[in-house]
Amino acid sequence: MNRHCRATRHVCVAMWVASVLFPGVVATGDEGMWLYNQLPRKLLRDRYGFVPDEDWARHVMHSSARLSTGGSGSVVSRDGLVMTNHHVVSSLLHRLSSQDRNYVEEGFFARSRDQEVECPNVEVDILRDIEDVTARVNAAVGKGDGPGAAEKARRGAIAEIEKESKEKSGLHSEVVTLYRGGRFHLYRYKRYDDVRMVFAPEVSIAYFGGDNDNFEFPRFCLDASFVRLYEDGKPAKVDSYLRWSEKGVSKDDLVFVSGHPGRTSRLNTVDHLRFLRDVAYPSYLELIYRREIALQQFGGKSAEHKRRAKDSLFGVQNSRKAIRGMLAGLQDPAVLESKLRAERTLQAAVAKDRGLGATLGDWDRISSSMAASRRFRDEYNFLEGGRAFWSTLFRHARTIVRLADERARPNADRLPEFRETAITSVKRGLESPAPIYADLETATLTDSLTHFAQAWGLEHPLVRLVLAGRSPSDRAFDLVSGTKLIDVEERKRLFEGGKAAVDASTDSMVLLARDVDSLARAVREKYEGLVTGVRKDAYANIADAKFAVTGTGVYPDATFTLRLAFGTVEGWKEGGAFVPFHTTMGGALDRNKQHANADPYKLPETWLAKVDAIDRSTPFNFVSTPDIIGGNSGSPVVNRGAEVVGLIFDGNIHSLVLDVVYTQERARAVSVSSEAIIEALQSVYGMGDLVTELRAR
Amino acid sequence: MNRHCRATRHVCVAMWVASVLFPGVVATGDEGMWLYNQLPRKLLRDRYGFVPDEDWARHVMHSSARLSTGGSGSVVSRDGLVMTNHHVVSSLLHRLSSQDRNYVEEGFFARSRDQEVECPNVEVDILRDIEDVTARVNAAVGKGDGPGAAEKARRGAIAEIEKESKEKSGLHSEVVTLYRGGRFHLYRYKRYDDVRMVFAPEVSIAYFGGDNDNFEFPRFCLDASFVRLYEDGKPAKVDSYLRWSEKGVSKDDLVFVSGHPGRTSRLNTVDHLRFLRDVAYPSYLELIYRREIALQQFGGKSAEHKRRAKDSLFGVQNSRKAIRGMLAGLQDPAVLESKLRAERTLQAAVAKDRGLGATLGDWDRISSSMAASRRFRDEYNFLEGGRAFWSTLFRHARTIVRLADERARPNADRLPEFRETAITSVKRGLESPAPIYADLETATLTDSLTHFAQAWGLEHPLVRLVLAGRSPSDRAFDLVSGTKLIDVEERKRLFEGGKAAVDASTDSMVLLARDVDSLARAVREKYEGLVTGVRKDAYANIADAKFAVTGTGVYPDATFTLRLAFGTVEGWKEGGAFVPFHTTMGGALDRNKQHANADPYKLPETWLAKVDAIDRSTPFNFVSTPDIIGGNSGSPVVNRGAEVVGLIFDGNIHSLVLDVVYTQERARAVSVSSEAIIEALQSVYGMGDLVTELRAR
Repeated sequence: MNRHCRATRHVCVAMWVASVLFPGVVATGDEGMWLYNQLPRKLLRDRYGFVPDEDWARHVMHSSARLSTGGSGSVVSRDGLVMTNHHVVSSLLHRLSSQDRNYVEEGFFARSRDQEVECPNVEVDILRDIEDVTARVNAAVGKGDGPGAAEKARRGAIAEIEKESKEKSGLHSEVVTLYRGGRFHLYRYKRYDDVRMVFAPEVSIAYFGGDNDNFEFPRFCLDASFVRLYEDGKPAKVDSYLRWSEKGVSKDDLVFVSGHPGRTSRLNTVDHLRFLRDVAYPSYLELIYRREIALQQFGGKSAEHKRRAKDSLFGVQNSRKAIRGMLAGLQDPAVLESKLRAERTLQAAVAKDRGLGATLGDWDRISSSMAASRRFRDEYNFLEGGRAFWSTLFRHARTIVRLADERARPNADRLPEFRETAITSVKRGLESPAPIYADLETATLTDSLTHFAQAWGLEHPLVRLVLAGRSPSDRAFDLVSGTKLIDVEERKRLFEGGKAAVDASTDSMVLLARDVDSLARAVREKYEGLVTGVRKDAYANIADAKFAVTGTGVYPDATFTLRLAFGTVEGWKEGGAFVPFHTTMGGALDRNKQHANADPYKLPETWLAKVDAIDRSTPFNFVSTPDIIGGNSGSPVVNRGAEVVGLIFDGNIHSLVLDVVYTQERARAVSVSSEAIIEALQSVYGMGDLVTELRAR
Repeated sequence: MNRHCRATRHVCVAMWVASVLFPGVVATGDEGMWLYNQLPRKLLRDRYGFVPDEDWARHVMHSSARLSTGGSGSVVSRDGLVMTNHHVVSSLLHRLSSQDRNYVEEGFFARSRDQEVECPNVEVDILRDIEDVTARVNAAVGKGDGPGAAEKARRGAIAEIEKESKEKSGLHSEVVTLYRGGRFHLYRYKRYDDVRMVFAPEVSIAYFGGDNDNFEFPRFCLDASFVRLYEDGKPAKVDSYLRWSEKGVSKDDLVFVSGHPGRTSRLNTVDHLRFLRDVAYPSYLELIYRREIALQQFGGKSAEHKRRAKDSLFGVQNSRKAIRGMLAGLQDPAVLESKLRAERTLQAAVAKDRGLGATLGDWDRISSSMAASRRFRDEYNFLEGGRAFWSTLFRHARTIVRLADERARPNADRLPEFRETAITSVKRGLESPAPIYADLETATLTDSLTHFAQAWGLEHPLVRLVLAGRSPSDRAFDLVSGTKLIDVEERKRLFEGGKAAVDASTDSMVLLARDVDSLARAVREKYEGLVTGVRKDAYANIADAKFAVTGTGVYPDATFTLRLAFGTVEGWKEGGAFVPFHTTMGGALDRNKQHANADPYKLPETWLAKVDAIDRSTPFNFVSTPDIIGGNSGSPVVNRGAEVVGLIFDGNIHSLVLDVVYTQERARAVSVSSEAIIEALQSVYGMGDLVTELRAR
């Protein structure tokens, strides 16, 4: 059923056979986030002479975990030990921390089981089985149903299937929509809600190199943590777990990544990609650049200022690198060329066969949504997207104002984020005790009002309304000093007081949010109608056509459900030189020395104390070609024998374009080597019991 | 002749009387960069009850200095000691430095006259007298001369006047064009070309606070240096020098600044200011933001990378703060409002009186130049301005390619930068031994090619030509690794080989420069014709009209010639709080401590060794209201008695808008206090002899 061609230079051109009877192949080289019930066995045999059999697949599937914090993990001992990334559990470490103990900075080390601490509000799901329920879901749709009725009928069938499955199996059951509606699969998970922290290193070594090294390679990060699943107050006895490899990886090894890629947009039309490349990403980057500078300027004032801006700065820097990487990918002519050929082939099939579910008009509709976006996106981004109002206080004010209005409406007529099911989380957001800093708010709001005035012109009536005759910095100062929303109690009072309380408020931010609300809502409606709505509908048709042509021989876009990716351990060529496939722990020590132990290459005290004990030759991080994306963080990397050889924690800068297209030439997944984890546990942290547990067969 | 109104809130509205017989006033509050032969004596008497008499003015004029490095200074001892800023002489310190001694970092301290070291290639000019030669210059113009012939006749007369003056007086003579051609004044300078370094502190205290504190206040910088003028190998005996004040400044003191403001654009129309505010500055800021991030990213790789990017980063950060400040000024509605009222008043006069030399059409022509700029500026900036090619190697390549072509043309037909008089400096540029780093070149070129592709779209034929089918980063790598221009000898070879050598070259950068040259030249011609040319002509007319209306009661735009500004020592209100007018040396020590002696608040060893000896209460930096701009760096601040009380080294962030409009509410000049200079020389550097020399009456 499947064919492959090995990428030589740039990405391999998709070879695709336009026949419904013999569905062609879209995957190229090591491409693919494959479903466990549709593994590309022929492709693997042809390419690597290895076929994962049913037992192999079931074993790896039953040892793969999904964390509700948004990442992946793997079960690595019979006592329910789960390995994941430090950055996947860092929110849990934050929650466990107190004024006295900062587990993010200091690390967390349970040296015996009774020191393992329960993490509140986190679940770990382990996929047990998959069932194709497409026929049953589609059977619910009546012959004459329009799109709305059909959608409703399918939702009804899905809810029924999930309920029935849960009752019958006791397992958490989810019907997953794949191929944008081409297939419906029922996923049954064993869910664990007693999850305890076992081990987390200090953030300085987990995120060694900081923003400098983020998405880069060579890299030296111990971005690894362990938690343990508990049942009935005791460590869970699991029937499946991954064994630890005794020898790690070598160059050219075949490896597999079993994890939960979050979202990909590989269906995007070429016109849409050009739009991202020439309009959306540049505009977003421009925003990111200015925000990064604004936060740096604020942080430069003092150590306390720096601390206040730290989280925002981290987010902005991470986005900047990600968008910069995606843009670089899209600016590689070979990347778009390959997408264009695949698109033309699919369009040729659609032009020939009216029964495929799409017409060429669907591509035109997507192009028209882009044209509409060019016209409205500034309005949308500044007013509704909040680009004009870079302020937590404003966000709270808008929520308060909108909630008061929305609550007066029937549930079905409300904006989705204010429906009854969402109210609890809205309330939680408003009641968040996270500190808001007036000085930081003034700085960020000054920057965004300046940007707004620049972009729209100071004479624009709405800019005049927002600035109220003041300069951006004066207005920001007035707004922040004129609001009481910094106080949780005041937010609560307005939330609870409903429309009457909000209407009576003279709070500066509430007034501003109210002043711009009808315009913001209007542009949102227009944008959703002419841009996102049109796209959703047209893409569904194109997905239908693609599925009709290629069938299950192609993997579906990522859906934060379990997938298997495969590839080879290898470096890449960059600027005339070869980037070797791995680094060593000695390299981390060298880099630390070169930078005189200064941020972001500072090592924790634990490491500095053990410099001489660390085996410098231990492989630290390595790169490989499997097809991964955000959500794969924490995925195990296993060898042919399903043994753990690594732990995915990042992709290199060239991998960021994988959102829209797989390329094998330089895109690489970045992992912590299994050997570095052992060496750190043993020689740095002295956690011999954990090592023994990991090594047990 | 002059009236003033004191600014209360925002800038004071220009009060202007539309009568040629009674020229009205444009200066408001402490506004004005006044000519020494047209001092605003009435204004000063009315406002401050003080009139600088002829002796006072001659004394201060004869004690004011202009340095060929681009700044101002003052003579402060009978033995030709000249005070200026560290940043005005830092290029000289660079030149004096060697591999063994870095005088910028370490400071320079001549503890006796024989340790004073000659600085090559620097001249200091001291203005001796001014003569109005307007009549003689204009008399050269024949009755029937068109604009071209008139211009030529004036240039001839000016050359003759300068030559004659030089022969007669032995003084360096320059005819200065003021009021955009309304007046011509002959300036005669005594020129010193033997200038020796006496004292420069370490850059860490001269530029304490780095980019964080640049254009900010409170501030703690010892941005001061001393050089000495020599004649016949001996310290120059001068007839005029400023005495040192024994008590410094107090709040509300009247002070004067005597220096050489470089360039202002206060004639700009409101439409032009809106264009700067909404188009030019935002676009430039976008460029600056992305370049700052690119340089930071490069510098983050290692200490050596950081060193290589340092100078570029400094320049970019300085520009970012400057443009951000100018933009903030223009975004203050009160600022444009005041400009608009002044413009309407002038337009009303023009509408009434056709003899004023301008028509309302001149304003329209400036607006039309803006419209043209909107159409071409991207083309112009990317192709001719080099925004697409952020690379020293490319700049060299373009110079080599153009020079080969231009030299084949008659001198008068060449681009101005390649006329015979400029060839020496072109050659000097090409032969500069300044190191070029291939890795930094690749990084900056990658960023600018990415930007070019973003802005024009990857499908644009010219983008395709430039990228040659490669991604921006691959192309940058190819270009940098394919050129030999990094080698001075190769640049020399091509320069000397002329057109034949350049045509035969297969150097990657030379080929690129050649490929884009005809297009770049074409867009330059278009831009100069439709944008800069139109503006120059229309502004000359508007300047005529303004001069006809206001006469010499108004100061001319800055021309890097000597001016006197005046104002008051006072802080300002910022964000609801008052910024005090001065800081103390203790404040610098405190700030250093808060930042744990880390960059950019690191103190030199000399200071750390003398922490206990420093009188913490000594005033360090102070702010005042005089009207200054770039070029004023190094100007002395003197009191009514013409004694030195300070040394201008910066303006606050609100002063940046002074380029186009004076505002008194928050714009402030920033100075080193005379007391801090004495205290540092005495208690930190142990340079008692220098102190004695400064204090001699």
